[in-house]
Amino acid sequence: MSFYDQLKFDASGLIPAIIQEQKTGRVLMMAWMNRASLEKTLATGKTHFWSRSRQKFWMKGESSGHTQTVKTLSFDCDGDVLLIQVEQIGAACHEGYQSCFFRTVQDDGTSCRITEPQLQTPEQIYGANK
Amino acid sequence: MSFYDQLKFDASGLIPAIIQEQKTGRVLMMAWMNRASLEKTLATGKTHFWSRSRQKFWMKGESSGHTQTVKTLSFDCDGDVLLIQVEQIGAACHEGYQSCFFRTVQDDGTSCRITEPQLQTPEQIYGANK
Repeated sequence: MSFYDQLKFDASGLIPAIIQEQKTGRVLMMAWMNRASLEKTLATGKTHFWSRSRQKFWMKGESSGHTQTVKTLSFDCDGDVLLIQVEQIGAACHEGYQSCFFRTVQDDGTSCRITEPQLQTPEQIYGANK
Repeated sequence: MSFYDQLKFDASGLIPAIIQEQKTGRVLMMAWMNRASLEKTLATGKTHFWSRSRQKFWMKGESSGHTQTVKTLSFDCDGDVLLIQVEQIGAACHEGYQSCFFRTVQDDGTSCRITEPQLQTPEQIYGANK
């Protein structure tokens, strides 16, 4: 039996994929995959997603060069979430941080602050016109 | 400004929350929160979620005793995913595994196998009648 038979894609045909850097354990991002992007991810060893806002298939790093090489791919007990361990090139976040989760809520429970260094500016990653 | 103003709940008023064990870096589970469960999580320091299948507010560990104490709460660049570092009591997965992501796809790209030990059976956690 293929593991695909154990997965549950949602009503839009999508499943969330948590991306974790294998060597550091840092959770880098979460994005959505459809079956085609999951198949492409496994076939190529590079993460591919489905953008809900742009309604577009995309490879992580296609613009920035910050690709992700798949190390392991797991799925949860309900079969409705993926966890993918990767080797990340450069910053995972399009805002230039290692992780998209660079803002952390403070002890007051309402304010937040940036809790990791910005490795590059978006202009450095994508060029001044993007 | 409250960090809530930077969050985007989906059309159902929900936001996915990735739960990571702080001391090991293990990603334990992903579940959904509405604003009320997020507020309760921050007020009590224990994770609370919204069950989409049961349409019900729930505290992690309310049946099993396997509660999660919040250590840090971060959110991503788009404001539409939470990452919560916790201290986990017992197994996070209702099937008795430390993490819900206990199944990993193998090198053939289609088969999978269980890649972590089962700490308890569901019967041991919830009793024989559940």
